[in-house]
Amino acid sequence: MNRAETVVSAMLDAIRGVIVEHDVTYEEYAIAKQWLMDVGEAGEWPLFLDVFVETTVERNAFRGRAGSAGTILGPYHLPDAPVLDAPFELPRRPDEQGEPLTLSGRVTDAEGTPLAGAVLDVWHADAEGFYSGFHPDLPPGIFRGKVIADAEGRYEVNTILPAPYTIPHEGPTGAMVAACEWHPWRPAHIHLIVDAPGHEPLITQLFFEGSDYLDGDVAGAVKEDLVVRPVGGRVEYDFALAPAEVPLAAA
Amino acid sequence: MNRAETVVSAMLDAIRGVIVEHDVTYEEYAIAKQWLMDVGEAGEWPLFLDVFVETTVERNAFRGRAGSAGTILGPYHLPDAPVLDAPFELPRRPDEQGEPLTLSGRVTDAEGTPLAGAVLDVWHADAEGFYSGFHPDLPPGIFRGKVIADAEGRYEVNTILPAPYTIPHEGPTGAMVAACEWHPWRPAHIHLIVDAPGHEPLITQLFFEGSDYLDGDVAGAVKEDLVVRPVGGRVEYDFALAPAEVPLAAA
Ligand SMILES: [Fe+2]
Ligand SMILES: [Fe+2]
Repeated sequence: MNRAETVVSAMLDAIRGVIVEHDVTYEEYAIAKQWLMDVGEAGEWPLFLDVFVETTVERNAFRGRAGSAGTILGPYHLPDAPVLDAPFELPRRPDEQGEPLTLSGRVTDAEGTPLAGAVLDVWHADAEGFYSGFHPDLPPGIFRGKVIADAEGRYEVNTILPAPYTIPHEGPTGAMVAACEWHPWRPAHIHLIVDAPGHEPLITQLFFEGSDYLDGDVAGAVKEDLVVRPVGGRVEYDFALAPAEVPLAAA
Repeated sequence: MNRAETVVSAMLDAIRGVIVEHDVTYEEYAIAKQWLMDVGEAGEWPLFLDVFVETTVERNAFRGRAGSAGTILGPYHLPDAPVLDAPFELPRRPDEQGEPLTLSGRVTDAEGTPLAGAVLDVWHADAEGFYSGFHPDLPPGIFRGKVIADAEGRYEVNTILPAPYTIPHEGPTGAMVAACEWHPWRPAHIHLIVDAPGHEPLITQLFFEGSDYLDGDVAGAVKEDLVVRPVGGRVEYDFALAPAEVPLAAA
């Protein structure tokens, strides 16, 4: 049995098992069929999968990996955020609302050796829970940018505290959440991809102690190690990167 | 927990269980995400589900139902086939190829009482394995029509022996079949929906002894009770219908 057959067979058997165990009816089968078509038509496959499945892939893929905890990428990353200039501040509107927040710390390897020039790609929602590039009220580029660590691996970036937000819930993913009587909220968080040559990129998020929905993240992405406590508008957090699984080719 | 949450949670848990058990990687997650989007864009959700999932729903839903064995509806039924006139012959082209076949028998209730005027909606592929309404070479309506049983529940319809066929395999469903090193063939079969007032419609298919792929139907729809043996171009098959689950309202 090749790899595709192993995984596809296991998925089909698992789905068939649920149908039998829970006596899924023809009427429910028809509803599921329509829902699957709707998810595609609404362009919600990345949303649905990243919210309801990715955390399992992430936890499994990186179980036992050296360095800091990662979590899901989610559907709101944009790959082409600009490299910012020091002193680092994420782009904001002149009248930006929100509590100021300074995030700083060190980027090291898994043994604690500083990684000079490490890149931190940072993105988060605004104080209303909206992402630039995805919500029409925000100009492009707001709260997105790449921050560079200094020669000692130190980084510091000024921004604001993002708000909790609901995943989009007007479409089929939201209809599923509503039918299950779940809520569509994610707790406030800052997304980061921390990277340095010769290391595995660390895809992660920082959450905030006491934040709403910390215990009920719809995306199931919260890990204890990723919850920080701002003191006087400042958060210190160190990132340790695992060595690259495939070493860089010699230059 | 409401019904939606019960079933959706069970499905998500089953999928997550396979990810963990088979160490599904981020790369495979990305492939699966793209495949799910492709299935929708190709309009293949009915195809994929009816071939790989429906038989489980069908077997489970009708376990223990009185009367003849049913099987999956499949994606090629068209609801508006005309009622034919006696002597019944499914529409064909003047130069139609294929071995002549006469299908006849009785429609009764589960106790064997004849059901006068029972309707048999019959559809099948041509001698090349193509369905009218789905393949550009066939005029609409070929090998589709409703046959009426007489006052003793007897029916008879002339047609040809259909050919085995492959499910469409140029799209994402076919890509999955190829990746798994499966084949895309269904054995030759005639589809029927047999119905009479006060009874459950019987959705079924008849297969032919000795036919290719009888033991490897990609849709897993073959049941022993549904395999017939044509003798001299004739097949006798009796259909027994279960009583309606929800009785008809008084007129
Ligand atoms: Fe987010
Ligand atoms: Fe068929």
